[in-house]
Amino acid sequence: MRAVVMERGKLSLEEIRDPEPGAGEVLVKSIACGICGSDLHAVRHTEDFVAASRQSGGAFKLKTFDPVVLGHEFCAEVVDYGPQTEKRVRTGALVCSIPALLREPTPVVGYSPEAPGGFAEYMLLSEPLLEPVPEGVPAELAALTEPMAVGLHAVNKARLEGDETIVVLGCGPVGLAVITALRARSAGPIVAADFSLGRRAFAERQGAHVVLDPRRDDPYSHPDVQRAENVVFFECVGVPGMLDQMFRQSPPNGRIVVVGVCMQPDQIHPLFAINHELAVQFVLGYDRDEFLTSLRQIADGRFDVGALVTGRVSLAGVEQAFAELGEPDRHAKVVVEPWRALGS
Amino acid sequence: MRAVVMERGKLSLEEIRDPEPGAGEVLVKSIACGICGSDLHAVRHTEDFVAASRQSGGAFKLKTFDPVVLGHEFCAEVVDYGPQTEKRVRTGALVCSIPALLREPTPVVGYSPEAPGGFAEYMLLSEPLLEPVPEGVPAELAALTEPMAVGLHAVNKARLEGDETIVVLGCGPVGLAVITALRARSAGPIVAADFSLGRRAFAERQGAHVVLDPRRDDPYSHPDVQRAENVVFFECVGVPGMLDQMFRQSPPNGRIVVVGVCMQPDQIHPLFAINHELAVQFVLGYDRDEFLTSLRQIADGRFDVGALVTGRVSLAGVEQAFAELGEPDRHAKVVVEPWRALGS
Repeated sequence: MRAVVMERGKLSLEEIRDPEPGAGEVLVKSIACGICGSDLHAVRHTEDFVAASRQSGGAFKLKTFDPVVLGHEFCAEVVDYGPQTEKRVRTGALVCSIPALLREPTPVVGYSPEAPGGFAEYMLLSEPLLEPVPEGVPAELAALTEPMAVGLHAVNKARLEGDETIVVLGCGPVGLAVITALRARSAGPIVAADFSLGRRAFAERQGAHVVLDPRRDDPYSHPDVQRAENVVFFECVGVPGMLDQMFRQSPPNGRIVVVGVCMQPDQIHPLFAINHELAVQFVLGYDRDEFLTSLRQIADGRFDVGALVTGRVSLAGVEQAFAELGEPDRHAKVVVEPWRALGS
Repeated sequence: MRAVVMERGKLSLEEIRDPEPGAGEVLVKSIACGICGSDLHAVRHTEDFVAASRQSGGAFKLKTFDPVVLGHEFCAEVVDYGPQTEKRVRTGALVCSIPALLREPTPVVGYSPEAPGGFAEYMLLSEPLLEPVPEGVPAELAALTEPMAVGLHAVNKARLEGDETIVVLGCGPVGLAVITALRARSAGPIVAADFSLGRRAFAERQGAHVVLDPRRDDPYSHPDVQRAENVVFFECVGVPGMLDQMFRQSPPNGRIVVVGVCMQPDQIHPLFAINHELAVQFVLGYDRDEFLTSLRQIADGRFDVGALVTGRVSLAGVEQAFAELGEPDRHAKVVVEPWRALGS
């Protein structure tokens, strides 16, 4: 099959062996697979990414320098079943799945040599993890199930009680997922901030009530934040310095949910956090219930994600798409469609 | 009156003017006043302490280089009332108070030139803030109301649900207050750790179930911690590196309450906190209800603090006591008794 293979930061379109489903596994055809910020990071900083993944022991991360096929935000079509399967989902039906195979040890789909991701024609999934996509939901929206589950999980971990003013710092795909999940439960007002004009437009489209360029308007001193009793920050940037900025500027008793993944060491001044008795919740990933909820809420329109897919590329376009995603203004989510003719 | 005056780290016993109570204020005689870790810090690192206090905007901190009389953990005796007072507490009765005067701006008792603290013969208090000490409670135990309120507040902010295993890192006065407050509500098991033999003995006396020397026994890998579903850490050390140590070693979903005040910048690796979805609550001080609860629980014996006062000194002994408190093995709490003959 055709696949985009990543090895030590280099992406190349290659012909590789078709995967063969083992016991309990399903061969699926990748129909739409989003490019994630972690994929960009894995390509640009492979050494750091692998080192950090190994150190932290975390899931959903690249732990090897062997060639892998990236892509863990996929919607796929059932092609064939391996042995010891119940075949409950009909061939040709669309499915999603959390990106893991039920083997020991559990390979992460899209970050493991034995579990190629969605930037290839075919993939393997574990039958018990299949989530059938409801009728009529386009594959490219179903492919947003995974990144939207990240936003949903972050919002769940915030344990909102309904009276909070929300500040979302960073409106890349993670920040947009958080805003979308917040709006689905009518949380807010939501004050969103990003340096990029394009991302601010997406944040507004997803329902943020106030959208600011932090170069001109300080989100911490916005009237909605200043007069709020309870403020919850969602940190969706993930670079050093963000935590300390919030420590210095949060109002008393502010709550901070750290969704952005800062890979580097970071410096903080605890005194500021102590002085305002801040609370910080670090979050990662989602659980299977949240994944399924995400798919259902995309299907029923509560997660209003129709505007988020801004690019569609064939396997031949993946390398170029990775380059373009470095420019924050243009895209929310680029989806790879491996069935698409290479020239298109 | 006689007072120990602190100026830029120098303590000296001096004769200064008796304070005069203004409207709504009370002249009291300092009977017992504990030496706090913050006092030690204010003396040893005055420049840093003042800079940090000014920067952070926090209460209970020294914001001036002018001479001050330290001492904010006091029990005092009512001597005389100023104008516009209701005189509800009889002269000669023992009282405590949160260390603040109801003026604008509010001076912190023991850290402001206009509000001398308990390391002097006399002090001023605001009548509405007086908390009469129940009959029969020794002044030196009532003087523990303030530091015990710090421990109580930290435990309250942890929002314990009853099924947590507790780890207390650091068994100085703050850690001991936390352990005492935890025991009063039967929380635990409590695993406490300190490098000092003396402090470990106090932790055991206050009711920690397991007491470890972290040089020999790693608290993170203690069986009580390893098999726990929910672990709550109380960080009562307050030096750089503690947070990152907990980030690396906490089990998944660990909760960290930061009670120790780290004055310096600190380095963390967010990836570890993200990987285990840790929660961090920074805490400071207490509210007036907690202060009153602390006094009541000392009075009724629920806060079992009888063993914590390990030294009693006159005003002439303050400087020496500050020096001795640098050695962690000997003391839990040294109380200054300004009425005591200088040679005793």
